[in-house]
Amino acid sequence: MLELEEGAFGIEALLTLKLESLQHTGSFKPRGAFNRMLTADIDASGVLAASGGNFGLAVAYAAKTLGHPAEIFVPSTSPAMKIDKIRAYGATVHVIDGFYAEAYAACEERAFDTGAALMHPYDQPAVVAGQGTLAVELSGQAPALDTVIVAVGGGGLIGGVAAWYASDTRVIGVEPQRCPTLSSALAAGEIVDVEVGGVAADALGAQRAGMIALGIATRFVPQVVLVSDDDIMRARRLLWEGCRLVTEPGAAATLAALLSGAYAARAGERIGLVVCGANTDPADLGGPAG
Amino acid sequence: MLELEEGAFGIEALLTLKLESLQHTGSFKPRGAFNRMLTADIDASGVLAASGGNFGLAVAYAAKTLGHPAEIFVPSTSPAMKIDKIRAYGATVHVIDGFYAEAYAACEERAFDTGAALMHPYDQPAVVAGQGTLAVELSGQAPALDTVIVAVGGGGLIGGVAAWYASDTRVIGVEPQRCPTLSSALAAGEIVDVEVGGVAADALGAQRAGMIALGIATRFVPQVVLVSDDDIMRARRLLWEGCRLVTEPGAAATLAALLSGAYAARAGERIGLVVCGANTDPADLGGPAG
Repeated sequence: MLELEEGAFGIEALLTLKLESLQHTGSFKPRGAFNRMLTADIDASGVLAASGGNFGLAVAYAAKTLGHPAEIFVPSTSPAMKIDKIRAYGATVHVIDGFYAEAYAACEERAFDTGAALMHPYDQPAVVAGQGTLAVELSGQAPALDTVIVAVGGGGLIGGVAAWYASDTRVIGVEPQRCPTLSSALAAGEIVDVEVGGVAADALGAQRAGMIALGIATRFVPQVVLVSDDDIMRARRLLWEGCRLVTEPGAAATLAALLSGAYAARAGERIGLVVCGANTDPADLGGPAG
Repeated sequence: MLELEEGAFGIEALLTLKLESLQHTGSFKPRGAFNRMLTADIDASGVLAASGGNFGLAVAYAAKTLGHPAEIFVPSTSPAMKIDKIRAYGATVHVIDGFYAEAYAACEERAFDTGAALMHPYDQPAVVAGQGTLAVELSGQAPALDTVIVAVGGGGLIGGVAAWYASDTRVIGVEPQRCPTLSSALAAGEIVDVEVGGVAADALGAQRAGMIALGIATRFVPQVVLVSDDDIMRARRLLWEGCRLVTEPGAAATLAALLSGAYAARAGERIGLVVCGANTDPADLGGPAG
């Protein structure tokens, strides 16, 4: 956790950053992966997940730590480096031709064949509850927050966080304009598929929000705001220049919501910003800092 | 502060990282700058310092925060980007032809002329005591440490840290082989000038250790170990890959001391590693992480 000085980034609110970028595997995702594994009955067939990104890393890491075999289904479009990292945690990696949907289908089929525990990246109760441990921790570290801002992909994190805070603290969602899953679902009153793209798609590019997230957000998330790719990349650069934090683009969406005015903070408002991951290439932050 | 899991980096000790890389201005240096300004009688002529690096940034930032005018003397060999940053904090920057020695001489002359308070980067009691607030904090955050490892340039930080811990906790110094100021002074029993160079010279490249540091280290620092430039750059890369921390080379020296075996940790030893700055270009950490 990092408390910023008053007026940081020219914002009048008082900002507290929750640094999930420094978590194991570089994102908050192990919280949900561990919780699901620790609350499920897992036999020798182990666990399965479909993901060539943060969730795949988290499942591989949690499985290794807990001694379960893990099979991870990654789309052939995933970067080789991420696949190598998943393999380095000891998981069996199946590279599936195509995109995420194909990898997920293969993963489901395998779960049917072997009885291994399928880990959904965001739409299982134990996964959502696990991500919510972030809020339990944060409310101990920074008990006086008025507002907590969370980036949304499929909604596992905001589901867990908003369920914990319920009505005590305002929980606000942020989505990239090009990955508007939860805001679209809230507007439609039901889950809808959206087209995803843009700079944060690697972390926030779920095709649709989870049912669990929609249910929780309907009750406990008063606002989901949208930010542009330019807002995100500017916030990411400022997190490096102002705080020496390297984050993936999606993790800068929360600061982007403030900088762009998409979320209009009040003077003196105590705001927690979740900085949710750092699986990124820092090279484009180049140029000496300091 | 970041507690690493057992076995992190293949080291059997239990590691706690003190993240001064996330401090204001990107290094621990504002601690000493603030303490000196808050305990000195500073008139309208303000404060002076010679530094084109972390100390210059810290003095400019502390002076701005406390409302003092600041003049910073930077050698013409400093990167333009750092000079711009110092100026951005509102300090008057004097660019002096030559190296640090020339900038320091000009700064001293100006102090004589104007009566402004000269801030020494590491050899004034209030500066050393200010850097020592790091240890006060760390001993509250991680009270059970057996050992704290600190990188040494002129010795301001290790002086403050070792004075705080005294004999309660083992304080170990680390120097780059190419900037061996304190180890040379300890060996000689007096301050000696050394040639400085290598990858960490921008942060640790003092020409000689401070008298205060030598006095404290003689009593309270049982060991100062040396690490190579390769050890440092490998540790810096691992801090990014394993912890998503971008640090300047000098700040990776403490981990390098463990990885290289220069400091031989015992299994189970609880070690605090100070990660002392991040004023660096992250571009050379490129290649996607995750």
